[in-house]
Amino acid sequence: MTNLKEIAGAVVAPQGFLAGGVFCDIKRLGTGKGSQKGPKRDLALIISEVPATVAGMFTTNQICAAPVKVCLERVAGGEAQAIVINSGNANACTGRQGMKDARAMTAEVAKLFHLPAAHVLVGSTGRIGVTMPLANIRAGIREAAQRLGNTPTHAAEAAEAIMTSDTRPKQMAVEFKLGGRVARLGGICKGAGMIHPGMSATGRRPAARPLHATMLCFLTTDAAVDARTLRRALQEAVARSFNRITVDGDMSTNDTVLLLANGLAENPPLGAGRGRTRPRDVETFQAALNHVCLELAKMIVRDGEGVHRVVTVRVSGAKHAADADAAARAVANSALVKASWHGGDPNWGRIIDALGYSAATVVEEKVDIGYSAPGSRKRVWSLKRGQPTKTTFPELCRAVALPEFDLHIQLNLGSASAVMYAADLTEDYVSFNKGDVTDAATLGG
Amino acid sequence: MTNLKEIAGAVVAPQGFLAGGVFCDIKRLGTGKGSQKGPKRDLALIISEVPATVAGMFTTNQICAAPVKVCLERVAGGEAQAIVINSGNANACTGRQGMKDARAMTAEVAKLFHLPAAHVLVGSTGRIGVTMPLANIRAGIREAAQRLGNTPTHAAEAAEAIMTSDTRPKQMAVEFKLGGRVARLGGICKGAGMIHPGMSATGRRPAARPLHATMLCFLTTDAAVDARTLRRALQEAVARSFNRITVDGDMSTNDTVLLLANGLAENPPLGAGRGRTRPRDVETFQAALNHVCLELAKMIVRDGEGVHRVVTVRVSGAKHAADADAAARAVANSALVKASWHGGDPNWGRIIDALGYSAATVVEEKVDIGYSAPGSRKRVWSLKRGQPTKTTFPELCRAVALPEFDLHIQLNLGSASAVMYAADLTEDYVSFNKGDVTDAATLGG
Repeated sequence: MTNLKEIAGAVVAPQGFLAGGVFCDIKRLGTGKGSQKGPKRDLALIISEVPATVAGMFTTNQICAAPVKVCLERVAGGEAQAIVINSGNANACTGRQGMKDARAMTAEVAKLFHLPAAHVLVGSTGRIGVTMPLANIRAGIREAAQRLGNTPTHAAEAAEAIMTSDTRPKQMAVEFKLGGRVARLGGICKGAGMIHPGMSATGRRPAARPLHATMLCFLTTDAAVDARTLRRALQEAVARSFNRITVDGDMSTNDTVLLLANGLAENPPLGAGRGRTRPRDVETFQAALNHVCLELAKMIVRDGEGVHRVVTVRVSGAKHAADADAAARAVANSALVKASWHGGDPNWGRIIDALGYSAATVVEEKVDIGYSAPGSRKRVWSLKRGQPTKTTFPELCRAVALPEFDLHIQLNLGSASAVMYAADLTEDYVSFNKGDVTDAATLGG
Repeated sequence: MTNLKEIAGAVVAPQGFLAGGVFCDIKRLGTGKGSQKGPKRDLALIISEVPATVAGMFTTNQICAAPVKVCLERVAGGEAQAIVINSGNANACTGRQGMKDARAMTAEVAKLFHLPAAHVLVGSTGRIGVTMPLANIRAGIREAAQRLGNTPTHAAEAAEAIMTSDTRPKQMAVEFKLGGRVARLGGICKGAGMIHPGMSATGRRPAARPLHATMLCFLTTDAAVDARTLRRALQEAVARSFNRITVDGDMSTNDTVLLLANGLAENPPLGAGRGRTRPRDVETFQAALNHVCLELAKMIVRDGEGVHRVVTVRVSGAKHAADADAAARAVANSALVKASWHGGDPNWGRIIDALGYSAATVVEEKVDIGYSAPGSRKRVWSLKRGQPTKTTFPELCRAVALPEFDLHIQLNLGSASAVMYAADLTEDYVSFNKGDVTDAATLGG
């Protein structure tokens, strides 16, 4: 990562991108006017000045929102130039009207910027089962179009506009050398609840059993990358980041990651003619993309609904990759394990219990369980070969009292490993999600 | 069920059974003396005056406690006469010493009652990873042996002794006519946390993916049933009851159901020579066993840790039985759905979301979601064919405000159905399970 430098500007850090966020009262609260002050923004636009290649990853939930369906069709074409995103309404379970509305949103953008509608993508998050307030949204799009810009403030307004139960905007950008040129990659994302993504490029489930947020992430880069190479890179980056996080084990109907690459960095194009692409450049681009996706994914976990503590579950020594994944997910999603993290209780009994009921092969007499500060090599072991170690209880309590720590599970059965970025289960999560039946009854995707 | 009459006495209601429960300080609290007063009892004995046939169902967790391993060996023999049970210590993850201790408990009982050790079974629940306080337990067994009796008070003391975080003892018994004789069947059980059993007769997992409590249940009957017929009957009853409940989705290391049948009702023996057993008698016995297991299983859900509301999830119209099961479990274990039940929020968006990420085939445009009072035919529909109905929000709120209600999910894809007895997710559950790091750090199985 020595080649990577963090810079400001998120999605407008790469050359040729504009963004903006406005308030258009999607929840029909009837409050506030204009976009400068008043309530949280709820509509964002991201636009490239020139056509870009595009790649996307989408929820594998069988109940999938209209904007996801529209993106699935359009991303297949490999080219796009604009993304319109709203919060407050997920446009999920809205039937044919929902599909019309999603397309109408993109048509409005296409008209304003003289683009083919097929080059405009759409993302939504918020209530499930409520028809979109299209007049408000159209007004919002027109206002956002007039207020686009490429300053960090513009990107931050877009990042705010896509938030739902998030308590803060999530954004980042990096700069790196690519084939002798300077390239940039930036992104914004949102999460908070219904977070356990299992996205694929086709919306179809992989052969493995289904995984389980609304999380939305929009990435931009000025690197020149062909659509096929871009898709492969995004698949790898999402597999290592967004598909490895969980807040509550519930996979949303709207999970979406989109990446636009407009080529304005003028690097030798990645993927354009095999002989001409330097493998090292592909690696450099992948490393930048992996880094941004992982940092954004971790921001989602840290800002998850009611989350007080973030735990990185690192399983190693599994027989197979699928075992490592199943073991890590079982621990990361166990209500009892997550409650003990909240309490600062180094309860290895619940961890080994969850391993035992996971789909992974586990042998009690072989399991090691330990803790470390994030990324530290110094580990405190609570269990070795299935038996409690001599580590004192206060020592273990100190290890799990950190606001973030790594949980190391060594199965000692093979060489496969997996990681999950997980959160504790708190009274705050329950209080938030038990619902305000006067308002949040249909909040969701 | 017209043939069934509820009677008092639980495990001692059937002829020839004795029970008792005492306090022997298994948690080494050092408080209280004797068994009449002071702290909660923690050791129970159940004994048949004559040898009985036996059947058992055990956790399919790969991390399985020593008492489960001992029972698995002995139940295979088909005959038993006594069960010793303790709370406060699960004897799980205790290695070779744990196996020695579990056998020593049964040996103590065998010696006192002049039985073969192989005819004594053992169950444990409580902390994981702590060596058993064998001297206390031996003293407890000796005291319990002197205090055995066949009054409802004796059964209630045994039911109290097996409780951990349960707030009340769970017991019931029924009387029914069997082949012209009066037979009885009774049971006691415990649950509260780590409740999502997936038991099998062999402790091996079924071909399907693993399910996910410590729940313990001890059943007695004076019906004459051979071991093979008894095992089949128990498998069916557990499949319809304990294996269909969930409090928190965590399957324990210690889940155990044991059933002793001592034949003192002197009915024509079930299963003894095919030609001689009347199929109707087998059905009668099965119905009695199903009824007792289901009622006891529901008591576990109602008294689950922090549970305020009990929801029966009824999925029908699934393509296959496995689909119906997967759909019901996904909904019953969704943190977001469970939190909405707590809040009395009729949030169908979260329900259809969970259906969509389950392993079941689900088609959005076909899903109906509705509510009824338990067992009532009068349903209030929130969703029909994937679209919100005209039922008003206050009407839906009233339907989910009941302390217990049925959730009806019709997938309209086939004819398979499944039911799960589930609980809400509350702040109280989290508070209880975040752990008192001065005591509960190793509480578990």
